[in-house]
Amino acid sequence: MDNKVALGVDIGGTNTVYGLIDAKGAIYQQGEIPTNSTQPVDHLVSRLYESTTKYLAKNGALEMIGIGIGAPNANHKTGMIDSPPNLDWESFDIRAAFGDYFNQKTFVTNDANAAALGEKNYGIAKDMDDFVEITLGTGLGSGVFSGGALVYGYSGFAGEVGHVSIDPNGRKCKCGKRGCLESYASATGVKNTILEFLEDDPQDLLLNQLNSGNINGAIIDSEYDKGNKTARKIYQYTGQKLGIGLAQVAAILSPEAFIFYGGFSNAGTRLLKYAKISMEEQLLECQKNTIRLLPSGLPQGKAGILGAASLVWEY
Amino acid sequence: MDNKVALGVDIGGTNTVYGLIDAKGAIYQQGEIPTNSTQPVDHLVSRLYESTTKYLAKNGALEMIGIGIGAPNANHKTGMIDSPPNLDWESFDIRAAFGDYFNQKTFVTNDANAAALGEKNYGIAKDMDDFVEITLGTGLGSGVFSGGALVYGYSGFAGEVGHVSIDPNGRKCKCGKRGCLESYASATGVKNTILEFLEDDPQDLLLNQLNSGNINGAIIDSEYDKGNKTARKIYQYTGQKLGIGLAQVAAILSPEAFIFYGGFSNAGTRLLKYAKISMEEQLLECQKNTIRLLPSGLPQGKAGILGAASLVWEY
Repeated sequence: MDNKVALGVDIGGTNTVYGLIDAKGAIYQQGEIPTNSTQPVDHLVSRLYESTTKYLAKNGALEMIGIGIGAPNANHKTGMIDSPPNLDWESFDIRAAFGDYFNQKTFVTNDANAAALGEKNYGIAKDMDDFVEITLGTGLGSGVFSGGALVYGYSGFAGEVGHVSIDPNGRKCKCGKRGCLESYASATGVKNTILEFLEDDPQDLLLNQLNSGNINGAIIDSEYDKGNKTARKIYQYTGQKLGIGLAQVAAILSPEAFIFYGGFSNAGTRLLKYAKISMEEQLLECQKNTIRLLPSGLPQGKAGILGAASLVWEY
Repeated sequence: MDNKVALGVDIGGTNTVYGLIDAKGAIYQQGEIPTNSTQPVDHLVSRLYESTTKYLAKNGALEMIGIGIGAPNANHKTGMIDSPPNLDWESFDIRAAFGDYFNQKTFVTNDANAAALGEKNYGIAKDMDDFVEITLGTGLGSGVFSGGALVYGYSGFAGEVGHVSIDPNGRKCKCGKRGCLESYASATGVKNTILEFLEDDPQDLLLNQLNSGNINGAIIDSEYDKGNKTARKIYQYTGQKLGIGLAQVAAILSPEAFIFYGGFSNAGTRLLKYAKISMEEQLLECQKNTIRLLPSGLPQGKAGILGAASLVWEY
């Protein structure tokens, strides 16, 4: 047993997941608390401090040696969170906020990069040097590995695959551009697709059911499995758009695999088989049949804290 | 004086440039011979062998310790050239062809990667870890550096920025896809632009002059400098398309700079100022004003051999 642990923190819009994790990825303490971003960040930090300090006091053999944080719009290079979507905080130095309070060496990255790190260190990408982790949720995030290392880019903002445009006349994205992959292949994108489909087919039962509440991937999945044609049409359309975006990314990076994580990725092959067909159509001849589309090898909700904690071990 | 030299070879459709180069980038022997790809590759190899052996015999202090080759469609990982465009050779193992004949350790990469390596080791990218070298010639090639290392990808075919599509309904590219950046921003692309402009304006003098022969960038440049509106329109249109493609690449890689090399890059700021405006319009908020567009810091024709030779030194 390794007695050194890192605190991995995955900050989400609603909840924050955290865990004390050793270098091999064994999780000693795991918890989930409301993020409460209407309060100053110290409110979150102090609650995490209390919880982990209590646990460590009871488990005297364990020693915390650092903190890794994954959060939306967090920048590895600067330690800042920049006006995160779905959080009420403005831009601030989240690395200092945690590091000073805990008096621990602290590392920061964005949530999709944390998932990619988790996949590389503890998931199905262990033996891959070149892959792209795609997180499908409300939006589409991504973390890129190239030559065995995470790609941060000069500004620290690399890996914005969700904002690769697949159509200059396409849907208006919240970023201001048109045709961003995220505006098709994400829960938000599927919501837009359902609204568009409803214009052509206002009586469709499934479309009306889906439109009446939050987009529920589980309902689409179960209708798809029963042979519902509308469910199939939704995944066909979404997968086709996703494939076009993946081929764009592949032209630049030529990865071994695109790996899908996050709530909306539970669709699995229902979505990915259409994405694969579409991607292969768009790939350069020399890249055809070299790239796999795979579901994540990590349990839902754990990639973030595992990856965030691994920032400490990598250091 | 370092007495160890590497043979750097830059194989082009018409001519092959080669040089004996030391680790600091000093070029001892430099030559250019016809590639003659209608003959088997050994014909080229034996001519290079004869020339360099003669030079080394006269300069007994120099010792060749390896060969680096840059060539179209050459794959660093496999050592193969795959059906190179503008060359009559089929797919074959170019690493073995040179390595066996010279009895030297031999390394291979594609021509745009060689230019990127040259820029990193001896050009303006010395202090950059994240940049994209764009070679503007007949086509648009690219070599990508991320985190200080060249991006090869899993298949070895990464860095095909010329085949990022900027419009799914755009121009048909020779690769089979539509809207590839290369079909707008390259000598071939400009030729297509001129044909399109001629449809709207069949009497335009400059368009007719350019259409009557090979596209001559120097003529467009000089007319641009005299204030010719058609010349400006050509660079405006081409730069605007180029900027859209660069923003796509930037979303994924967030580089410090795009660096332009190759015959068509002599247009310099005439083209790049329009590309910059267009790129900035398309960039994500967090990436705006973080990326420079720069002309290469290497003399025309030398990036290839310097970069190819540096493969030996990197090893």
